[in-house]
Amino acid sequence: MSTSNLDAVFNPRSIAIVGVSTKAPLDQLGGNSYLDAMIRCGYKGELYPVNPRGGEMRGLPVYPGVEDIPGPVDYVVSAIPAAGAVQLTQDCAAKGVKAVHFFTSGFSETGQDEGIRLEKDVLAIARQHGIRIIGPNCMGVYAPGSGMSFLSDLSSDSGPVGVICQSGGNAIYVAREAACRGVRFSKVVSYGNASDVNESDLMEHMADDPETGIILAYIEGVKDGLRFRQALERAARHKPVVVLKVGVTESGARAAASHTGALAGKDMLWDALLQQVNAVRAHTIEEWIDMAVTFTFFSSPPGRRVAILGLGGGATVLAGDEAAKEGLEIPGIPEEMRRQTARLLGSEAGTIINNPMDLSAEAWRVGYYPVLKEFSEYEDIDFSLVHLSVGLIARPPELHSKIWNKLIVDVVRAHADFRKPVVVVTQMLTFPEHYEWMIQAREKCYTAGIAVYNSIRHAARSIIRLQRYSERKRVSAP
Amino acid sequence: MSTSNLDAVFNPRSIAIVGVSTKAPLDQLGGNSYLDAMIRCGYKGELYPVNPRGGEMRGLPVYPGVEDIPGPVDYVVSAIPAAGAVQLTQDCAAKGVKAVHFFTSGFSETGQDEGIRLEKDVLAIARQHGIRIIGPNCMGVYAPGSGMSFLSDLSSDSGPVGVICQSGGNAIYVAREAACRGVRFSKVVSYGNASDVNESDLMEHMADDPETGIILAYIEGVKDGLRFRQALERAARHKPVVVLKVGVTESGARAAASHTGALAGKDMLWDALLQQVNAVRAHTIEEWIDMAVTFTFFSSPPGRRVAILGLGGGATVLAGDEAAKEGLEIPGIPEEMRRQTARLLGSEAGTIINNPMDLSAEAWRVGYYPVLKEFSEYEDIDFSLVHLSVGLIARPPELHSKIWNKLIVDVVRAHADFRKPVVVVTQMLTFPEHYEWMIQAREKCYTAGIAVYNSIRHAARSIIRLQRYSERKRVSAP
Repeated sequence: MSTSNLDAVFNPRSIAIVGVSTKAPLDQLGGNSYLDAMIRCGYKGELYPVNPRGGEMRGLPVYPGVEDIPGPVDYVVSAIPAAGAVQLTQDCAAKGVKAVHFFTSGFSETGQDEGIRLEKDVLAIARQHGIRIIGPNCMGVYAPGSGMSFLSDLSSDSGPVGVICQSGGNAIYVAREAACRGVRFSKVVSYGNASDVNESDLMEHMADDPETGIILAYIEGVKDGLRFRQALERAARHKPVVVLKVGVTESGARAAASHTGALAGKDMLWDALLQQVNAVRAHTIEEWIDMAVTFTFFSSPPGRRVAILGLGGGATVLAGDEAAKEGLEIPGIPEEMRRQTARLLGSEAGTIINNPMDLSAEAWRVGYYPVLKEFSEYEDIDFSLVHLSVGLIARPPELHSKIWNKLIVDVVRAHADFRKPVVVVTQMLTFPEHYEWMIQAREKCYTAGIAVYNSIRHAARSIIRLQRYSERKRVSAP
Repeated sequence: MSTSNLDAVFNPRSIAIVGVSTKAPLDQLGGNSYLDAMIRCGYKGELYPVNPRGGEMRGLPVYPGVEDIPGPVDYVVSAIPAAGAVQLTQDCAAKGVKAVHFFTSGFSETGQDEGIRLEKDVLAIARQHGIRIIGPNCMGVYAPGSGMSFLSDLSSDSGPVGVICQSGGNAIYVAREAACRGVRFSKVVSYGNASDVNESDLMEHMADDPETGIILAYIEGVKDGLRFRQALERAARHKPVVVLKVGVTESGARAAASHTGALAGKDMLWDALLQQVNAVRAHTIEEWIDMAVTFTFFSSPPGRRVAILGLGGGATVLAGDEAAKEGLEIPGIPEEMRRQTARLLGSEAGTIINNPMDLSAEAWRVGYYPVLKEFSEYEDIDFSLVHLSVGLIARPPELHSKIWNKLIVDVVRAHADFRKPVVVVTQMLTFPEHYEWMIQAREKCYTAGIAVYNSIRHAARSIIRLQRYSERKRVSAP
């Protein structure tokens, strides 16, 4: 069995989706949602929906079985009940299928003899015929470059981030949420019970994959510790690797055991391992996504010395505290810059002219551009952090959007015009219109190449992690 | 000068709003927004808009000056430029006004001689005539029981939470955001530069205020340490007090100094003080709001032993880790309950039948009610925590809402029917419809008396804090 060639998994010439239903909604989770997702993602090969009743779906003939499909089939998505899995695997073997993804659950993750036996039987047939198995009990593959997707609303644009994520739900969340902050993916793989393709296979693949420049791994458990360690070490030598190790507490581990049958390793061993190979550890799913954003938008760390600019005196005080607690430096501004800023504003009433800075009401008039310019020219500053505390000001929404949109325009211009980068934080949201505006604002920012975070703490922590990562990288460079 | 009687501040018989503009939008921030806010909040006394040009506004005559108002005036909101503050204070003294709130900024917070002098002059006149000053440079008073408000969109319902918040922006944020999670307020006071009424006055007032059962304090700096300590100690003896001390780092302190002229104390001294008096310390504004939610919805701590129920295997693993890391206990379930749950579900495929528990797809069919019932009957469990990881499942929105709404109905029923409380976490949101749904879901929950949080971590941390608070309270009880 070759462990590294996952070509049929990521570049199949044709895909059969077993378990579609012509009677259910076109986007019903299961066979139908997979067919819909592949079509929307622009899959270029042949798509073969399969259901014993036959019929037609999305203008495609529905085949009663895999064996009835006229052309060759490289890849199969199974969305049928577990009881049919063994027969399906045999049919796939007869057809010459190269990889089967079992969305189907009800295998070893149940902890029951029946499910464990089924999973073993499927694997035995697959191994005998050289079929790679993804799962069972997982979302499978989202690889936009190949037009493969596991959900209809995922972007069809590809990018440098490869995700290894045992959990299907978390794979969905990262694919959606990170996308809303400008992250694009080479491939996202949810591999569930990992009966065949596992974290080590995927880490080895992504280490060598020219489409993948940044690796995110969500690990519940590891099948072969030594092999994973080697794969991780090799990957981390060439690319940033961000690991979210879960099941680190007894109860988390208990859930992981039932979830994907994984045995969670000792937390401190993970700390040691990740530090040794210079992989970045994330402690929450938010931090994990933050690092995808950070590595996507920064090719090198911007430095530790930040200028903080935002709206609201209290928010500014909090921003100063949070950034400093995470390890950023916030140099005070020289008297000359203070005077120049005061001249610019005309009035100092209700403002904080220092670092962190709050222009408050004057921000509407002068905007952020001229102040970001001053900061960029001040040699003690490495980058600027703008916090848009959108819940702080008055409704109605029209006024709201108008005011904040002007600041976004300024931030985008400043990031483009000045040598020093700008980072944006959207925070303190309350009403639906705040969230709507935030989603649009994030898109304007990331389209302009700006990293966006959900809190000062998260922004600062991410940038400090990038800084430390780069420092260790330099030290260990040959 | 009496320091404790703030009756004129919180129960004025009449209010003059100086600095309205008949030409600007009715809700423009300043005089107009204050007039609008008081009207919407149902202020019952006389309202007198004031502007030298006179005219009419909202069906009320606009008076050229305070001295032209026919009846007595207890309370004045000033929204005119700082240059006019001294004259206005003199006019107020002549009129017999008892309290003036200066929304107006441009005083000592600028750090400039001019502003410092102005603030001193205003205070000297006020002291001479027994006028209390709120601010300057602040949002002032939201006291829905008296129909006083500083923003048009705040609830006119009152409740037990009193907020002492130097910052205006953060006062707005807490008033809005905590309200969306079911918190209602006795009064929220933003007191800015604290030239007269300060944190000690307000803490003393709230300690004795029968309308206030829970006190939240956001402190940038303290004018009189000994007096504040005594006020805090007295308040904390009778009511939960949650303190968010900011300006704890050098840069945060620098911002605080420019923001409201406050000198930030040493962080560790605050830790010691708050522990001595058994006040609860919050480290972020989110934690501060969380404790308002927690003290609002729990009269006593629910215990540490939690049953965790939610959707998504990965989300469940993360939930177990996060709850345990914060100090909650997550007892595994006995084999009998496991079997009973399995019978209930019919299928175990894709589920996690343990604690934490994930019913995944089966949740749509059986709902959460029967499982919450089982947990409530299991003696090793004190309360249930349901996480609604709304970003994990498929669109479209209609289906989305239908599915999740069923679970909310179950949660509300379970909380009402069973002896053990249910806590809800809404998390993993991505799309605008997720946020819209979350806002509605929160309202359904808090209306039913359920505490809602934004993450497992925040929920667990809050409940552990409540637990510790109560334990210390018991120990120190006379």
